[in-house]
Amino acid sequence: MRNILNLKNAAAVTAAFMALSAAPAQAAVDAETAYVLNTFSFLVNGALVMWMAAGFAMLESGLVRSKNTATICLKNIALYSLAGLTFYLVGYNLMYLDVTGYVGSLSPFWGPDDAAALEGTFEEGGYSASSDWFFQMVFVATAASIVSGALAERVKLWSFLAFVVLLTAIIYPIQGSWVWGGGWLSEMGFSDYAGSTLVHSVGGWAALSGAIILGARKGKYAADGRVQPIPGANLPLATLGTFVLWLGWFGFNGGSVLALGSAASAIEMSNVFANTNMAAAGGVIAAMVMTQVLYKKVDLTMALNGAIAGLVSITAEPADPSMGMAVLIGAVGGVIVVLAVPFLDKLKIDDVVGAIPAHLFAGIWGTLAVAFSDPEATIITQLIGIVAIGAFALVLSTVFWFILKFTIGLRVDEEDEVMGLDKTELGLEAYPEFGRGSQTL
Amino acid sequence: MRNILNLKNAAAVTAAFMALSAAPAQAAVDAETAYVLNTFSFLVNGALVMWMAAGFAMLESGLVRSKNTATICLKNIALYSLAGLTFYLVGYNLMYLDVTGYVGSLSPFWGPDDAAALEGTFEEGGYSASSDWFFQMVFVATAASIVSGALAERVKLWSFLAFVVLLTAIIYPIQGSWVWGGGWLSEMGFSDYAGSTLVHSVGGWAALSGAIILGARKGKYAADGRVQPIPGANLPLATLGTFVLWLGWFGFNGGSVLALGSAASAIEMSNVFANTNMAAAGGVIAAMVMTQVLYKKVDLTMALNGAIAGLVSITAEPADPSMGMAVLIGAVGGVIVVLAVPFLDKLKIDDVVGAIPAHLFAGIWGTLAVAFSDPEATIITQLIGIVAIGAFALVLSTVFWFILKFTIGLRVDEEDEVMGLDKTELGLEAYPEFGRGSQTL
Amino acid sequence: MRNILNLKNAAAVTAAFMALSAAPAQAAVDAETAYVLNTFSFLVNGALVMWMAAGFAMLESGLVRSKNTATICLKNIALYSLAGLTFYLVGYNLMYLDVTGYVGSLSPFWGPDDAAALEGTFEEGGYSASSDWFFQMVFVATAASIVSGALAERVKLWSFLAFVVLLTAIIYPIQGSWVWGGGWLSEMGFSDYAGSTLVHSVGGWAALSGAIILGARKGKYAADGRVQPIPGANLPLATLGTFVLWLGWFGFNGGSVLALGSAASAIEMSNVFANTNMAAAGGVIAAMVMTQVLYKKVDLTMALNGAIAGLVSITAEPADPSMGMAVLIGAVGGVIVVLAVPFLDKLKIDDVVGAIPAHLFAGIWGTLAVAFSDPEATIITQLIGIVAIGAFALVLSTVFWFILKFTIGLRVDEEDEVMGLDKTELGLEAYPEFGRGSQTL
Repeated sequence: MRNILNLKNAAAVTAAFMALSAAPAQAAVDAETAYVLNTFSFLVNGALVMWMAAGFAMLESGLVRSKNTATICLKNIALYSLAGLTFYLVGYNLMYLDVTGYVGSLSPFWGPDDAAALEGTFEEGGYSASSDWFFQMVFVATAASIVSGALAERVKLWSFLAFVVLLTAIIYPIQGSWVWGGGWLSEMGFSDYAGSTLVHSVGGWAALSGAIILGARKGKYAADGRVQPIPGANLPLATLGTFVLWLGWFGFNGGSVLALGSAASAIEMSNVFANTNMAAAGGVIAAMVMTQVLYKKVDLTMALNGAIAGLVSITAEPADPSMGMAVLIGAVGGVIVVLAVPFLDKLKIDDVVGAIPAHLFAGIWGTLAVAFSDPEATIITQLIGIVAIGAFALVLSTVFWFILKFTIGLRVDEEDEVMGLDKTELGLEAYPEFGRGSQTL
Repeated sequence: MRNILNLKNAAAVTAAFMALSAAPAQAAVDAETAYVLNTFSFLVNGALVMWMAAGFAMLESGLVRSKNTATICLKNIALYSLAGLTFYLVGYNLMYLDVTGYVGSLSPFWGPDDAAALEGTFEEGGYSASSDWFFQMVFVATAASIVSGALAERVKLWSFLAFVVLLTAIIYPIQGSWVWGGGWLSEMGFSDYAGSTLVHSVGGWAALSGAIILGARKGKYAADGRVQPIPGANLPLATLGTFVLWLGWFGFNGGSVLALGSAASAIEMSNVFANTNMAAAGGVIAAMVMTQVLYKKVDLTMALNGAIAGLVSITAEPADPSMGMAVLIGAVGGVIVVLAVPFLDKLKIDDVVGAIPAHLFAGIWGTLAVAFSDPEATIITQLIGIVAIGAFALVLSTVFWFILKFTIGLRVDEEDEVMGLDKTELGLEAYPEFGRGSQTL
Repeated sequence: MRNILNLKNAAAVTAAFMALSAAPAQAAVDAETAYVLNTFSFLVNGALVMWMAAGFAMLESGLVRSKNTATICLKNIALYSLAGLTFYLVGYNLMYLDVTGYVGSLSPFWGPDDAAALEGTFEEGGYSASSDWFFQMVFVATAASIVSGALAERVKLWSFLAFVVLLTAIIYPIQGSWVWGGGWLSEMGFSDYAGSTLVHSVGGWAALSGAIILGARKGKYAADGRVQPIPGANLPLATLGTFVLWLGWFGFNGGSVLALGSAASAIEMSNVFANTNMAAAGGVIAAMVMTQVLYKKVDLTMALNGAIAGLVSITAEPADPSMGMAVLIGAVGGVIVVLAVPFLDKLKIDDVVGAIPAHLFAGIWGTLAVAFSDPEATIITQLIGIVAIGAFALVLSTVFWFILKFTIGLRVDEEDEVMGLDKTELGLEAYPEFGRGSQTL
């Protein structure tokens, strides 16, 4: 009941905490309880990360045109499904099993082994193998989700899904092994807590490569260089998607503590939750102020992308910064988005939902910003990681995109693009009863 | 922090787990902590199951026409409310209290008794009574949600709600007592972990009976036998609903471990989460491939129903199968959906959202599939349970539907059906500013 | 596995609980485990409360017209961001730090101090400071969300956000310190478990004051006194928002146990979850029956507001009432909403989403109803709290609204209001491809 705070002086609550002398009890969490808590943290936080797949689906559904909405919905549920399958087939083993420095095990099919725990033996920091698998798996889908948004409205369904398989089976787990698998970058001291680089930039590089190779949507860039805005069809859905991502990110960063079996890990998770929230808030407000100043109007989609950029920015190190620093780190992410969206347009790189600024650019920024709060990280090492992983992801993505382009083809026919992918790829409409033209009445 | 994995060799993490010799600590979870964890599992997982009510609401909102959207929203929030009320009034006691074999206690009004725990005495596996009630309650609503989707667009609001009361107060708890209440089917060895039969098939039988008695929507089946597709008005909402159901299903199956107070239960819950996810993924991919092969297009609504069918299929036994087997069990569910939807249409059974294939047929499949992974289950016993519960649910549903048909009436007037239930039953519109006809421009 | 219930007689499960003699184990939760559990409760429940921000966003998006939808989305994500920032800057300290009776500390910038816990010393009931901050922070945004709905479709974006800063930085924390900070009202015995008055009524008073000062939307009240209904553009989104709020409310009330480190707190949290659910169910059914009786139609938006009113009503005391009493308390909330909406219209107070009936009036009712189940609460003390906090919130809100009115202005131009705020404040449209007029075809 709330009246735990109903003391004469509420400060006493806080004060009592700090008073060592007043401490009545000292007892550690027993090994099995810690095991249960570590495991449950992976499940609860992992479920929140799974929820981010819905967030990307809604964000992208809201930011594409209605004629491509059902297709983006399908891509999102399909990519989440495929990411799980590939991570089971090869990904987890490549990333975490017997990592030799540059790659893990090539043996297929992951399976759990919890025999020791079932017999009552618990390593410090231990957890159920499936809970760890589940938590790592949901991260893979996030990287793929970033690509689907950037390439929406023109990439072929099955070509996109083929790329998802390559991304989640090869690109993501190999570079992931370098850091979270304990490979060479981790040994060098590169630090990326929950994946500003490993997840978000990797998805961003793959999206950037794909967006360039695929080319812009028809009509987006006029011959005279003017940029034609193509507004999304359903902004409340985009807003919902952003809120879903924000919620899911508590699991994304919070679960990355990888433990809940001690006060220290619970405290760290609390700081991560609070900082994650504040970085997103900083991103929103920064993007709002920036668009108000630059354009005399506040742009809702920029505010939404500001939230995402703030979240991506804090992801490389959500535990160490003070709350005020977290706000600033996120705010810089929000500024980056507002500046980078027109910059990409200048380069005629057509990123439908703003995924490249929010995930790649803010991911780079966040990875560098680790050096401000983590004394063991240096700008140099962080840069090495960013460049190494970026080069790997960019080169491999480019190779894969080109292979797909010259085999099954990447882009739908011009006619199909005009008609919309929902009709041509799926044979249906996302909103058959509403739709285009009604606005002219 | 993520660098728990930053070991020289990431495999060491896994290896260390398995190394019995390295085990530093052996301590069991104390009784009160186990009680707290068991309870909290019911609350967290139960909240996820409650969220499925929103999932059904969105799925159905997206798959009906806009003129019936507000009504289906109302039905969904009303049925969830009613399910809780009847479970409090009679359902829980009928299902779990003093079960004699075929039914539990007829005494009304459930109330918690946690006196022993409050005095510091904890049974093994114990939990707070209200947390158990809450977790069991949210399951009831799921069964009712299945019916609302199948019968949408033509059933009268109050008649539907009257059926919900009968379903949740009588049909669901009585057959539930046979298994989860410890009745005759459970004694016989019938196994249904989280309710492929007890929840999903029961809802499916009630929906099937209702769909036949109610008849098809006007215009769905032409006199010449042709099936007229009636597309849903808002596919991103249907996609959102499916993601919500997927997320909620972690609670549905995961909470059905009924414990979190030991490493064994935490491991089981982890396996359940992972398998639940993989079965859904298998269902999505199977449905996509099937529709691509059969129709040369991928059908988004089939992919969504594939996810649901995969989830239903694994629900009877999400703990025992290997991950690969879970994928297959779910994939078969996805195939079933793709084949069963046109099959029902051939029989002129009009199931608006595909609930009968996804919940009833996949539920039967999933219940049978228990025999593949659980050595204690046999196909025969599983069949007996499926048939017994099916017969009970079908007969009672049919009786109730007929009683309603010949008293207050089941179906809205033909004129009202054409006009849409939102206008005639609620006097409003779900999307007053968009709407029909705009597509013709 | 579900067959924990597969006993010969399911009642044995329940019975065994109660049987003191059978108790095999008695052991308390150790101090560090309790600390972890208390902390994790704040994080999980706090994340659910954060999710309510999305619920308000969707509810309001669905209940405004499409021309104002993007603006209400922006307001909601901005207010949630601002609430976090102000609570960090001044709010938490004002509310909880060194409260002298009427206000806490004026020193800015909150920061955590978990040194004692990190050194292994744990107070009874202790938790990580950041987890507490996070949980308290998400409550602030709720109060602000209430205002955004009531004043939608006519208040200027930046003026509204300026008010949000004043509300969350000054009004909310100061009155909060009187009760949850341990100030004078708490000493007097005023009881408000999770904030029927402190959160919901405060938001409601601010909304009432704003709605009066701002005036009604153009066209809402005809010169001859007739009320012109202005239907919301997207009722499934409003339904989704209500389900989100319902889910989030488990965290709102459940987390307000402020502990999970003992069986007693877990039991209390379970009762809170169950009662919260039943009050909402009571609110839905009461509102449905009321509208059916009064208007011969069931109004979906009234049912949704009935759920919210039920939730607000139980919030002042969700732990003590029996389940049946919780239903009744919520049902009265539902009745209040149905009666209060036309009452406000009679007074020409234009509350776009029905926030004042659902949050203010039901909040008053819920705060009074504490006296029915909590023997330590009296109607008199509850009334004193309601009046004191109401007067404070109303007076300060009014002052702030007037300051804003006579400086930067509160209301958009009449022309802009007709055009819609999305175009004039944001320069975009929420649904550019659907939209007005299509209904006339």
